[in-house]
Amino acid sequence: MTELVFIGLGLNDDKGITLKGLEETQSADAVFMETYTSRMPDFNMERFEAECGKKVQLITRRDLEEDSGKVVLQAAKAGKAVFLVPGDPFIATTHVTLRIDAEKMGIKTRIVHGISIVSAIVSLSGLHNYKFGKTVTVPFPDNFSETPYNVIAQNRKLGLHTLCLLDLRAAEDRYLSIKDALKQLQLVEEKKKLEAVTPVTVAVGIARAGSSKPTLKAGFVKDLVDWNFGEPPFSLIIPGDLHFMEIDALIAFAGAPGEFRRLAK
Amino acid sequence: MTELVFIGLGLNDDKGITLKGLEETQSADAVFMETYTSRMPDFNMERFEAECGKKVQLITRRDLEEDSGKVVLQAAKAGKAVFLVPGDPFIATTHVTLRIDAEKMGIKTRIVHGISIVSAIVSLSGLHNYKFGKTVTVPFPDNFSETPYNVIAQNRKLGLHTLCLLDLRAAEDRYLSIKDALKQLQLVEEKKKLEAVTPVTVAVGIARAGSSKPTLKAGFVKDLVDWNFGEPPFSLIIPGDLHFMEIDALIAFAGAPGEFRRLAK
Repeated sequence: MTELVFIGLGLNDDKGITLKGLEETQSADAVFMETYTSRMPDFNMERFEAECGKKVQLITRRDLEEDSGKVVLQAAKAGKAVFLVPGDPFIATTHVTLRIDAEKMGIKTRIVHGISIVSAIVSLSGLHNYKFGKTVTVPFPDNFSETPYNVIAQNRKLGLHTLCLLDLRAAEDRYLSIKDALKQLQLVEEKKKLEAVTPVTVAVGIARAGSSKPTLKAGFVKDLVDWNFGEPPFSLIIPGDLHFMEIDALIAFAGAPGEFRRLAK
Repeated sequence: MTELVFIGLGLNDDKGITLKGLEETQSADAVFMETYTSRMPDFNMERFEAECGKKVQLITRRDLEEDSGKVVLQAAKAGKAVFLVPGDPFIATTHVTLRIDAEKMGIKTRIVHGISIVSAIVSLSGLHNYKFGKTVTVPFPDNFSETPYNVIAQNRKLGLHTLCLLDLRAAEDRYLSIKDALKQLQLVEEKKKLEAVTPVTVAVGIARAGSSKPTLKAGFVKDLVDWNFGEPPFSLIIPGDLHFMEIDALIAFAGAPGEFRRLAK
């Protein structure tokens, strides 16, 4: 059998994979894993290899981008290869090219989904999924861009929430903090003055989504910049119009102040 | 311990749960499951109960909505209760109220995420996650609404893709088909003429996302209405502007015709 199965590892640790994902890994001829698109803080490789009964080969960004995933494709040509990816395999676009290349080589591909940071954050917040607009990534200050602010402003004009993923360089152990993300957004606010991210804008900061101890804090931007969220990774939601049920959820699950009740629309 | 753990079952069958979710279920004092918000076509209860070593109590919509989840909250007050939910526990808003009620009663709540239909569909399509706008549900014709069309039109104006969940009544085994969803959207098109869903609009139909044999078909609306997608559940994407990499993905994974290449923006 010549086959390449992309399997999502989910979030945080080696127990975020599904039973189906584990079974597929147990029956593979070769197992690869990349860990550079995301951080899995509590992933224990020894425990995972014992669980799946396979030796896992780590794949670097270089292996995939410069060598076009040759080692993975060769293994898939020879038998059943499994490629393990943090979160869900194709929510980040990095691996779509590898999948297209495999199909072009006549290698059958399949997906076993994993939990994506995108749905985990929406779920944790208690905000309504159908009220989220376009998602955006806030880059590090050395890649400063006005795009995240523009996306938030556009979504807010439509009454929609914005999920902001905060940039990370897992290999360098660097994570954009909620404080630094808010500062960047406020810099653009000072210039554009669309009232999209002011000190009294509501925001929700989330740390370690998908772990057993996530931190959520809903408050005004001016309060969140000084909040201690603990360890990374971090994410941020800038809500649009809030329904009273969403406000109840932010008060119950994210420590929002009671004065949020007057914001219901 | 007085605790209520919401656990996502993921998609399709009893192996869509994570290792973490299974462990939490194995150590629970009481296990509940609801199956009315979604369909899990290949879920085998006998196999699942053997795997987790617990008897699972099925919860109806009536138990939750009329009796306010009393049976679940009582069990959580007395020990560790687990509430199993298809997909991810809070992507549908139905269970947020139960969680708020629990917290108000002093019951600690936690979430073990599951795979959501929302991220699975995005992942399967190969389209870029950050290019999706607001999500919408297309109702059955007897609940006809212009909202889905309006959301698609608004998203397209911004160049964004729209994920359309198609309504279902799992208890009645009724599922809105891709054909009927497209017909409804075209009815509104005939009235509003915003060119959001015409016979030559690009669409992607998806059946059985998260199963081992999903069906994807990208094509023009006029072709998709006659496509045989097989068994439910169904979903639909109406893309906005397409990047050439996204078109390559639709050709490789969703059988899009080669003429799609001229649509790249």
